[in-house]
Amino acid sequence: MRYEARLSGSGGQGLILIGIILAEAVGIYDGKNVVQTQSYGPEARGGASKSEVIISDETIYYPKATHLDLLLCMNQKSCDEYYLDLKKDGILIVDSSLVHQVPTNKAYQIPFTRLAKEELGKAFVANIIAIGAIAEISKIVKESSLTEAVLKRVPPWSADLNKKALKIGMEEGKKAEAFIPSKG
Amino acid sequence: MRYEARLSGSGGQGLILIGIILAEAVGIYDGKNVVQTQSYGPEARGGASKSEVIISDETIYYPKATHLDLLLCMNQKSCDEYYLDLKKDGILIVDSSLVHQVPTNKAYQIPFTRLAKEELGKAFVANIIAIGAIAEISKIVKESSLTEAVLKRVPPWSADLNKKALKIGMEEGKKAEAFIPSKG
Repeated sequence: MRYEARLSGSGGQGLILIGIILAEAVGIYDGKNVVQTQSYGPEARGGASKSEVIISDETIYYPKATHLDLLLCMNQKSCDEYYLDLKKDGILIVDSSLVHQVPTNKAYQIPFTRLAKEELGKAFVANIIAIGAIAEISKIVKESSLTEAVLKRVPPWSADLNKKALKIGMEEGKKAEAFIPSKG
Repeated sequence: MRYEARLSGSGGQGLILIGIILAEAVGIYDGKNVVQTQSYGPEARGGASKSEVIISDETIYYPKATHLDLLLCMNQKSCDEYYLDLKKDGILIVDSSLVHQVPTNKAYQIPFTRLAKEELGKAFVANIIAIGAIAEISKIVKESSLTEAVLKRVPPWSADLNKKALKIGMEEGKKAEAFIPSKG
């Protein structure tokens, strides 16, 4: 088993943080082998950000994601750029408040940023809503492990806010599944 | 040019954060290609933490560190475990408040944790002192880029504290060089 996830969008959307949270949840609490990576180079200067998590039952010798099982896109540019790296049966999840041209009718479209603002009054928890949805949709991480990992990495004053964000993400993930054609 | 750095110690010492800061300083502000990684697996359950940064002028095809140019050890266990991965002329930097058995007389020994507590009253900035020392000793990152990257990643209230921590690290890095035998 090897599972490759890429979390992409703009710098400042907290994609590195949720990459680390997902990796710690699966690696430390679920006990799998995980490598979490971010790359910087010419493309980082435009404010693009991507964070990758590779999960395996075995030692990970090649820690680059090349055939994605899951792709999260928090802006249009990342969706345009990375969609072709997704496997044929891979999962595409987009922030539908920011991504308006979606390349497939099988995408999970959830307005993470709008939900964060409207439901919680804080746009910056859009990333935590997204990781909650990813857990629900992909089943790659136990919900209890994810909650523990989130609480370990966010400031103590924001614990409640983040727990609510996770819950919204999980619920929205469940709802979005109903709209995926192949799951009919 | 390829440069491999590993930042190691216990979970909670902020090694992932300084890995990200170093990577952003070199990748975004200095414009080099950088891959920053952390791995989790059986060893992470003991609370061990390591963060790797690979820097290159070219595209990085193999993002694992195997022949370290620089190794930071913030506890004894990481020093025992990773010293053998250091190149013959690689740089070893240890937190001498926590690492008492040093495997070579060419190590840079700086009491990061003690300095953080005594000079700044906050043990948690030991990691920022360490990254300041790394910049001074290794010259792999411009000091202005590192300062920018630190300020981008720490909470605004702690900006002054972190700037002081960086400065202490740079000064201590300079002092420690005088004790390296080969540099006479």
